[in-house]
Amino acid sequence: MLVIDELAILGVGLLGGSVALAARRRGVARRIVGVETDPAARERALSLGLVDAIEPEPGPALAAAEIVVCCVPVDRVAELLRRAADFARPGTLLTDVGSTKGVIVSAVEDSLPGHVSFVGSHPLAGSEKGGPEHASARLFEGRVVVVTPTERTPPAALERIGNFWQALGARVLPMNPQDHDRAVAVTSHLPHLVSSTLARMLPPEMAELAASGFRDTTRLAAGDPVLWTAICLQNRSFLLRALGLFVEQLEEFRRCLEAGDERGLHALLTEASQRRQAL
Amino acid sequence: MLVIDELAILGVGLLGGSVALAARRRGVARRIVGVETDPAARERALSLGLVDAIEPEPGPALAAAEIVVCCVPVDRVAELLRRAADFARPGTLLTDVGSTKGVIVSAVEDSLPGHVSFVGSHPLAGSEKGGPEHASARLFEGRVVVVTPTERTPPAALERIGNFWQALGARVLPMNPQDHDRAVAVTSHLPHLVSSTLARMLPPEMAELAASGFRDTTRLAAGDPVLWTAICLQNRSFLLRALGLFVEQLEEFRRCLEAGDERGLHALLTEASQRRQAL
Repeated sequence: MLVIDELAILGVGLLGGSVALAARRRGVARRIVGVETDPAARERALSLGLVDAIEPEPGPALAAAEIVVCCVPVDRVAELLRRAADFARPGTLLTDVGSTKGVIVSAVEDSLPGHVSFVGSHPLAGSEKGGPEHASARLFEGRVVVVTPTERTPPAALERIGNFWQALGARVLPMNPQDHDRAVAVTSHLPHLVSSTLARMLPPEMAELAASGFRDTTRLAAGDPVLWTAICLQNRSFLLRALGLFVEQLEEFRRCLEAGDERGLHALLTEASQRRQAL
Repeated sequence: MLVIDELAILGVGLLGGSVALAARRRGVARRIVGVETDPAARERALSLGLVDAIEPEPGPALAAAEIVVCCVPVDRVAELLRRAADFARPGTLLTDVGSTKGVIVSAVEDSLPGHVSFVGSHPLAGSEKGGPEHASARLFEGRVVVVTPTERTPPAALERIGNFWQALGARVLPMNPQDHDRAVAVTSHLPHLVSSTLARMLPPEMAELAASGFRDTTRLAAGDPVLWTAICLQNRSFLLRALGLFVEQLEEFRRCLEAGDERGLHALLTEASQRRQAL
């Protein structure tokens, strides 16, 4: 069981707040410090008791942290971790929670000083609702957290980050950053674009006809456009491949419909239904 | 408040069973008879108390019904209603619950004898789980039921079918059959194809990386392939138009990704997020 004296959270929104709550609830960290640029979020994080202290920028307050978890948008992770590392004591373990790993991991590994170590993480947990007020101590319970070691990762750092996420209730799945990005392009980033495209097609006057099926299929679209723009761009090469495959497979439906091909349509829908039910 | 002596349900699955349960719970019908070809479903419908009597085929047992609700797959509605009408007494009101209306309404209106009347219905309620054992007395509570009168619909029949669905807890929305089919092509049938295409893209070995976002976006895909094949074919012309528009709008995402167009991507995702949040 991992117990540390001090944990630092960079970016105290939904995910950062949930890491803090889970670490506190489960006795993983004795003290938690936050770094958050947004003054309103700083105030809420303190008043909700998510952190013991909070600063607007990385600074000497980080010197006592044994583990630093960076929970900011994917395009800001590498630079923020580099700045935080200047204040970290030797042996500090850094990680992030970004939905993309290839770009982040290589940028961080290229820029971090040698006295700290880093392993990328991606908890498959979240919500279309952001902000520390939606944080939950149970967000990671039973969820998969992918960790992405490379050949530069010290084995002890990989073991420690695995213990950390397990201590928060998660199941840890190690993958290399490219395999991760290829997979989540299909399981997460493509569904976001598809969901968003459907949502854009609904004229307000048709909203009365959008029942639970439409609502479920478009739930992802409500996510934060700033976060998702950065995610899509960081994973654009795998996402473009997934998108191409999706359009090809959707065209199979179009051909069956155009031809009135009942048997073909039934075969496609049966395969889809079986795959979904197997989940 | 509508109260009738006898209600007939043709096809006692999820929807037919739920109409029966809701009618019983709310005191809308004193007696309910069912017609169901599947012997196992007949037995479950009786043992669950959904109906007071059940027959394998339309027959003289229908003669006392004041309202007949046909809850079979869309490609079997018109023929079954025509057969049921032979046993119906003068003034009986017939309806269906199909997800398509144009084909059904014109086929039924062309074939029904003059001593009964018909108004098409489509309750925007359901589940990817079928069968009478998943029926719920509350399925229609607060949900929209579209009713689709034409110029051949007697005003009294329209009023009565509206009262019937309201008595089951639904909100009634009259539309003409074509407007209905055009709208649900976007709000229901296209989401089904999109959801199914995503589900088909997930290789079993990636299932661990499919979190709640993927599960929600593909929930519809688990639906019954037989029902959905018939729905897609009956609404193929509006569905093909919706599919074409969807692919065009998805291509906007592709162009932004290919060009690395951060501003364009952000604009698309923002529009999607606002539309979804307005639901």
